[in-house]
Amino acid sequence: MTEVRQPGTGARPRRGGGDPPHDGGDRPPHGSGDGAPQDSSAGRLLGIDIGGTKIALAVSTMDGMVLATDVLPTGADEGAEAILTRLAAAGHRLLAGSGGSVVAVGAVGPGIVRPDGVALSPNISGWHRVRLADEIATRFGTARVAVDNDVKAAGLAELRHGALRGTDPGLFVSLGTGVAAAITVGGRVLVGAHGAAGEFGYDLRTPDEPRAAADGYSPLERAVGGRGVAERAAAVLGEPVTAGQLFARTDAAARQLAAEVLAELAMHVANLCIAIDPRRVAVGGGLTGIGAPLFDALRARLDAAVPFPPELVPARFRTDGALHGALALATDAHRS
Amino acid sequence: MTEVRQPGTGARPRRGGGDPPHDGGDRPPHGSGDGAPQDSSAGRLLGIDIGGTKIALAVSTMDGMVLATDVLPTGADEGAEAILTRLAAAGHRLLAGSGGSVVAVGAVGPGIVRPDGVALSPNISGWHRVRLADEIATRFGTARVAVDNDVKAAGLAELRHGALRGTDPGLFVSLGTGVAAAITVGGRVLVGAHGAAGEFGYDLRTPDEPRAAADGYSPLERAVGGRGVAERAAAVLGEPVTAGQLFARTDAAARQLAAEVLAELAMHVANLCIAIDPRRVAVGGGLTGIGAPLFDALRARLDAAVPFPPELVPARFRTDGALHGALALATDAHRS
Repeated sequence: MTEVRQPGTGARPRRGGGDPPHDGGDRPPHGSGDGAPQDSSAGRLLGIDIGGTKIALAVSTMDGMVLATDVLPTGADEGAEAILTRLAAAGHRLLAGSGGSVVAVGAVGPGIVRPDGVALSPNISGWHRVRLADEIATRFGTARVAVDNDVKAAGLAELRHGALRGTDPGLFVSLGTGVAAAITVGGRVLVGAHGAAGEFGYDLRTPDEPRAAADGYSPLERAVGGRGVAERAAAVLGEPVTAGQLFARTDAAARQLAAEVLAELAMHVANLCIAIDPRRVAVGGGLTGIGAPLFDALRARLDAAVPFPPELVPARFRTDGALHGALALATDAHRS
Repeated sequence: MTEVRQPGTGARPRRGGGDPPHDGGDRPPHGSGDGAPQDSSAGRLLGIDIGGTKIALAVSTMDGMVLATDVLPTGADEGAEAILTRLAAAGHRLLAGSGGSVVAVGAVGPGIVRPDGVALSPNISGWHRVRLADEIATRFGTARVAVDNDVKAAGLAELRHGALRGTDPGLFVSLGTGVAAAITVGGRVLVGAHGAAGEFGYDLRTPDEPRAAADGYSPLERAVGGRGVAERAAAVLGEPVTAGQLFARTDAAARQLAAEVLAELAMHVANLCIAIDPRRVAVGGGLTGIGAPLFDALRARLDAAVPFPPELVPARFRTDGALHGALALATDAHRS
């Protein structure tokens, strides 16, 4: 699935599937390559989004113009070393085709990415022991590496270049297989004391919730995330049904379950907004594919429940925010 | 209830009921009176906490040593003008006895204190139209006035001088008649886009909650705040019972209701912690008077539900945090 366009060949640069991470209006105030070496014209940023099922990569110019992207399967069962080898190969291939050399790398993924491993990321075998920043630095031969949680990176992309620009506080909510948020305050994404701010997939659903984080269980995500919805739909409807299929169905049982899922999601998004009092909420993730029913359910609950209801908008980067965030992190790593 | 001790008379200065807003370790780094006029030794700060049932006032030296305090009934039904007149008289009386003249005033109360009125403060007649900062400035003859929400002020007091010092992020939770929080991030209390961050008394309790903020209703506070608990207790137990009495009773019905209230509170505090990932949670408000049952319920839920459970401590200023926060605001107003 590699697509590479080389600058200077007359091919129009690819802009991240239609979501340019920059347009004329949101360039960094000091311009790109500020203080950078003279050869910055050939400098390249690499962004990597390591998901549970696929790894997305993007190479951009120093001012954020995406030149090439690639997507490959994660192969989560193959273990950390195999995954790192595969993503390094893909990254080098993209860079080689981009007519420049890598200056900085941003890498993001689920869980809490720490120097000595990735916490809260049960889906990739051996990932909890991976020193991601070190591995990336070694494999790409640059010390300018930044790593972060994928949803926080997507929130950063919205804050810098997307739907949360100029908003304070802001809230990016990612609804899909995973359920999580990024809270933006004062021009930054709220990290939290342990890097876990915004992980509202762990929310308790009821006061007597029997299982929760200490059991490796994320109550809200298991109930209203993609996999949980599919399981509930199969149980209610008596046949295998994906979350997407559930929301497309028109039979009463399906509509009832879909409404329950949206009402519960909306309650928790509303309670998040009550806590933060954001000016604007941007919604991304796969569930945004169902469109109006999601936004209508959220809008109604925010209006009813939040003392000062925030604006509600689709994220600019619907499903590729983490990759754009990885490039934003690479930009920061270059400047630091 | 006025208590005035004059400095220089040999009387030991009163220190806010045993909760000194400063000790040697937490003085502001630049010392007090930094850049202040030469007569700062006689300068006084005035803090005012305007609650639904009582108004508390404190006069301090410029470096925060409380010299005198007073408490008077709010008389919420008498209307804004009567309240302002009464608190101004009490403030002038305190100041006159303190051997100095007022340099700055901090005033706090429930609701969202804005330039043109106080929003979300239904308990004081006419308060929604009061320009509190202007009124205080006029009545005390100083332009150095800061106003804020009482729980945010109490959070500021914990952050500056109390249990949240050096903690980032931090969470102050006020549990009593009202249910609200102050989130501290980067050395400040999170204000929110409309001044309403932390107002989790508005939290939805269930996905199908019939009434909420848009109806002037705060679902969680009505269920687990002091008045709501008293109403529920009376309904269950068949006689008038205050919240405090409920938690002291040992009969099965009372214990069951008390456990339900604590479990629901704990769920919402846990979900707040999941959102913010605070390093420490400080709990204040009247409900802390029940002691271990509250802290045990919170501790158990935080441990079970929050991916990285925060420390849990009693607030330094159990019920007078807002007054100490008002003095902290006065300090800021003086320096600005």
